[in-house]
Amino acid sequence: MRIRSLILSSAMLAAPAILSAPAMAEEGMWTFDNFPTERMEGEYGWAPDQQWLDRTRAAAVRLTGGCSASFVSDAGLILTNHHCVVSCLQDLSTAENDLIENGFNPGSLAEERMCPGQQAEVVTQITDVTGDIQGRIEGLTGEALVNARNARIAELESEGCEDDTIRCQVVSLFGGGQYKLYRYRKYSDVRIAWAPEFQAAFFGGDPDNFNYPRYALDAAFLRAYENGKPVTPANHLRWNPRRPEPGEITFVVGNPGSTSRLYTQAQVDFDRDLRIPVTIATMSELRGRLIAIGQTDPEKARQAKDTLFGIENSLKVYLARQRALNDAAFVETLESREADLRERSAGNAEIGDPWTAIDSAMGDYRDLYLSYRFIDPQSSLFSFAQTLVRAAQEREKPNAERLPGFTESALPLLSKNLFDERPIYPWLEEETLGWSLSKAREYLGADDPDTKLLLGNESPEGLASRLVTGTRVDEPEYRRYLWDNGMAAIEASDDPMIQYALRLDERERELRQAVNERVTGPISVAQADLSDARFAAYGDTIYPDATFTLRISYGQVKGWTERGREIDPVTTLGGAFERATGNEPYDLASQYLAKEGQIDKATAYDFVSTNDIIGGNSGSPTIARDGSVIGAAFDGNIHSIGGNYGYDPELNRTVSVSAAAVQEALETIYPSPRLVRELNEN
Amino acid sequence: MRIRSLILSSAMLAAPAILSAPAMAEEGMWTFDNFPTERMEGEYGWAPDQQWLDRTRAAAVRLTGGCSASFVSDAGLILTNHHCVVSCLQDLSTAENDLIENGFNPGSLAEERMCPGQQAEVVTQITDVTGDIQGRIEGLTGEALVNARNARIAELESEGCEDDTIRCQVVSLFGGGQYKLYRYRKYSDVRIAWAPEFQAAFFGGDPDNFNYPRYALDAAFLRAYENGKPVTPANHLRWNPRRPEPGEITFVVGNPGSTSRLYTQAQVDFDRDLRIPVTIATMSELRGRLIAIGQTDPEKARQAKDTLFGIENSLKVYLARQRALNDAAFVETLESREADLRERSAGNAEIGDPWTAIDSAMGDYRDLYLSYRFIDPQSSLFSFAQTLVRAAQEREKPNAERLPGFTESALPLLSKNLFDERPIYPWLEEETLGWSLSKAREYLGADDPDTKLLLGNESPEGLASRLVTGTRVDEPEYRRYLWDNGMAAIEASDDPMIQYALRLDERERELRQAVNERVTGPISVAQADLSDARFAAYGDTIYPDATFTLRISYGQVKGWTERGREIDPVTTLGGAFERATGNEPYDLASQYLAKEGQIDKATAYDFVSTNDIIGGNSGSPTIARDGSVIGAAFDGNIHSIGGNYGYDPELNRTVSVSAAAVQEALETIYPSPRLVRELNEN
Repeated sequence: MRIRSLILSSAMLAAPAILSAPAMAEEGMWTFDNFPTERMEGEYGWAPDQQWLDRTRAAAVRLTGGCSASFVSDAGLILTNHHCVVSCLQDLSTAENDLIENGFNPGSLAEERMCPGQQAEVVTQITDVTGDIQGRIEGLTGEALVNARNARIAELESEGCEDDTIRCQVVSLFGGGQYKLYRYRKYSDVRIAWAPEFQAAFFGGDPDNFNYPRYALDAAFLRAYENGKPVTPANHLRWNPRRPEPGEITFVVGNPGSTSRLYTQAQVDFDRDLRIPVTIATMSELRGRLIAIGQTDPEKARQAKDTLFGIENSLKVYLARQRALNDAAFVETLESREADLRERSAGNAEIGDPWTAIDSAMGDYRDLYLSYRFIDPQSSLFSFAQTLVRAAQEREKPNAERLPGFTESALPLLSKNLFDERPIYPWLEEETLGWSLSKAREYLGADDPDTKLLLGNESPEGLASRLVTGTRVDEPEYRRYLWDNGMAAIEASDDPMIQYALRLDERERELRQAVNERVTGPISVAQADLSDARFAAYGDTIYPDATFTLRISYGQVKGWTERGREIDPVTTLGGAFERATGNEPYDLASQYLAKEGQIDKATAYDFVSTNDIIGGNSGSPTIARDGSVIGAAFDGNIHSIGGNYGYDPELNRTVSVSAAAVQEALETIYPSPRLVRELNEN
Repeated sequence: MRIRSLILSSAMLAAPAILSAPAMAEEGMWTFDNFPTERMEGEYGWAPDQQWLDRTRAAAVRLTGGCSASFVSDAGLILTNHHCVVSCLQDLSTAENDLIENGFNPGSLAEERMCPGQQAEVVTQITDVTGDIQGRIEGLTGEALVNARNARIAELESEGCEDDTIRCQVVSLFGGGQYKLYRYRKYSDVRIAWAPEFQAAFFGGDPDNFNYPRYALDAAFLRAYENGKPVTPANHLRWNPRRPEPGEITFVVGNPGSTSRLYTQAQVDFDRDLRIPVTIATMSELRGRLIAIGQTDPEKARQAKDTLFGIENSLKVYLARQRALNDAAFVETLESREADLRERSAGNAEIGDPWTAIDSAMGDYRDLYLSYRFIDPQSSLFSFAQTLVRAAQEREKPNAERLPGFTESALPLLSKNLFDERPIYPWLEEETLGWSLSKAREYLGADDPDTKLLLGNESPEGLASRLVTGTRVDEPEYRRYLWDNGMAAIEASDDPMIQYALRLDERERELRQAVNERVTGPISVAQADLSDARFAAYGDTIYPDATFTLRISYGQVKGWTERGREIDPVTTLGGAFERATGNEPYDLASQYLAKEGQIDKATAYDFVSTNDIIGGNSGSPTIARDGSVIGAAFDGNIHSIGGNYGYDPELNRTVSVSAAAVQEALETIYPSPRLVRELNEN
């Protein structure tokens, strides 16, 4: 489970993506405007036509929390994963009613509840704006290039996109080789319509996460509303609760968050040497802190549940990436991929030497990285304060001069996230803030100027306590007041968190500027060259790295061979009962135990397919050849994590929960006759 | 601070050491029977004579907890580091009287208190037994070789060493190129005679650990007793509380625990790819758990203090090693070192190809490592149970057939550690046991047979709780009963921890055997060949990897250049007052604040020198040319940690606390007129 996009901090995701050698069978996260029809026909004797693609695209949903989903009824019903709604359930829970643990099964539309911060988006149009943007940055370098590009993007995302129901977003593909303007129909009122018990959705817990065979009901339903009423989407997928058959064609349609398959060796080395080790060590400590606190205080365990599972999920990803990059055979594959492109490009004078340019930029990034990463303390309250300070500054500027997250096109979602009500747990804020400040000191050193800026004479714990105790940014009205009254209110505020965000602001901007000038800018130029090199060498049978935009992957239901053992591609509901030990995390959900006699144990449960996915694809519909939805992708097997750097058709697998199991749950385990009707009658 | 030897688990230290290229200036942890007199004379125009070496050796003390020390009076007074006595202070503390926080300053001999498990040892004789042992293993391989060697070592360590005051120990140098029999005079009653406040000893805490400039009074005094009376050692060092002078010659004499400078590339890669990442991720989590528990419960914080600081210290070491092995320039140095030896050995048919043999053995070790590491759950209570079970089994066998830790020569210290009374904190046992079991499942996988053996159907937390709650091995009398009554009592016991140790025993032995057969055995043969290759290529100006046996390093008081800035080699007591912020860990100890007016702030505090040391050297006397002690080594700078793999004379530095600062503390801050007299009058 939990291939939700890894959105941890901007610095972690800062190094941009690039492009690769020709795809291997089934490899590829293809854009809808470049589906490899010929290749699929060659491999499978069939490929979807344009109408199939258009209809599917119109039903595909992006969830702003970092997940994917699909419309499955004409009344706005959305299928996604349970783990994509855990933060919603967390926000709606109280000490008395824990919706994560108990599940949520409203008996009527009126009882469906809004998920704070959640927005659903459907792509309606993709326009190529490569020439437009490249014309604006031609001949520029460093920060100037980044600024000119951002300015033009801000314009493109505003023009003709003023409507409240529209979001426009420019996406850079192939690291700058292409720019596309995506136009979305957006739905800002998304409610939770059905969720099983956590223990059903996440049976096997962290130990089984990214493993298979699997027995998890990682599914949930949301519903999009407008003006208080369910919406009618342009299209929805037909619900098809049948058993997936080995060998049948499957498509996964969703928004893979980020891959690094087009990295040069210098970028891979940076991950291996710096980004991954720092992430693992620091997150492991936070994991330990939250585990220990939860052991002695069940209510705190409940409050931190989503945070802890997010950490464990990310950690598992980083640990598997580390293993991949410490695997000599895997590294050799990456090296030979680069060597092949260099060789094919050797005679091409126009390409120059982008590898050396990236080497140099990544050298600079090594110098800047720790400061850039640790200058942003981790806490929701600090994020509120930082957003308020920055919004006040940026909103005074013309749209084209603002920081990317603060342009007109970005403000609606930004303010939704700022004002949707959700609980804040002061102890958790203090813990994460104190932790991140202590890690800053550890990695930067006690005598580093940035450490001194962050801490002054205070201890990490003392500072965190003072800020969290003293701030009012936990109050939505106070946030609204500061938002509405701009810099004057910010400067007049004696709120310690606001003042702290102000204190860090200049240095944060300075570091961002340095990264743009020395890293992002030069790499953009080099990547455009690499993009040319790849197209020249391999033609257009290549796909861009993932960018949390809509992609389609084709493949088939298929197991794999693990240390000589054949893995069956489909599990059954009965398997969960066999795997159960009665002890956490292998204890069955209460309703599984209560309904054991009624459950059809032969029902298909989870299944694997060769589709090429990654974090962000969580909740993506798994679609049969006839366009119906037969499952929801919720995980990859352990091998798929190395897929960040390269896809291995022998081993990489997508894990989906079957529509059949969801149907059985809706009928028997967590009965929702109204949803059964809705799904099966239209 | 905290260059105490890293003794974490046998699996962590399992891969044995080997040997290197010729030493660079000041590099080298030399054995006393091979001091590089000529080389030092060449570099410094002077070197100590045999009498100097003999007298110094006779005053050098090894502490069995993993530290070094020296006799500094004719009444058995021993100088070491404060961090080497923290576990003693921990054991002697109560909720009402926290000797770690408050320090310990007994007014008379009668008030000095015994440190549980502590033994002091002085080398009295070193005999070369290389021919003897090599004769026994000639032509053997794999496990047969390891068993034959262990058998002969057991005999050599017993013959003529039966006296209660003698310990004999065979040491393998150059990974099996040489074997030496060390004979020690041992002192089993070691008492604490003086310790400052923790906040004086560890000012700057983890952030300043392995950093410099430094302001830490990391010193303490122990005293060796026999028959209830202070002993008169064969020799002691003259106390010399004067300012260390830049450029003056210094010797550090102590017991470096373990280095890996003679590793082949395959062994270094294993560290980088597997051992270090696993250690960092798992220990970071435990660190987080203990930090969080301590935050909400001050008494638990006190109880876990020594454990937590041990973890943070080790983590800092592993993080720095990871950085070193991810540093391209550093790795290149290691590679060229190996290439040089290969080239020089190319024509030498007798040497064969030990590199390939080690490649292959390390490949096998990669397969075995995780099981071998995680099959031993981490907990003092489990260790008691495992020791009791194993002792019962092994003591039934002839001495030469026993496991190495259970031979006649090993039993006295083993039983001292088993029976010396010390507090056990059940919550801490449960926490570390539950943590290590959950990490076993994480790294081995939920479906691995070893995970199933470790957990059965229980959860890590549930199993830990059941074992810790139900066991009686926390009672010294019960341990004594099981020890005295052997296998019959073990098998009849219904103690859950004893039964659990029995349950794991067979698999543990099987894994040990597999490691001996496939890793340790083949590597021993290959390392003996590498040893020959090195002596042939570089003559005898080489030193063996560290083995927690007595070594001497020469060097000088000298700063270094850090990013263009000159680091002054000597700090002053006044500097601590300047660095203090009033907030933890930069808050001054209470007596520093109380006595500020009386303290001579110009007194030398800590100082750096070019001596080559590593964990295990903690507490080593820092000795002037005239043989007097002018400080106690307690740390290396951050660069010195990479010293595990190779010494860099430009950057690697030893950090010592000066005798001058200790004298000022004894006179003014934590006054002990009796110790001042004793130190300065004899």
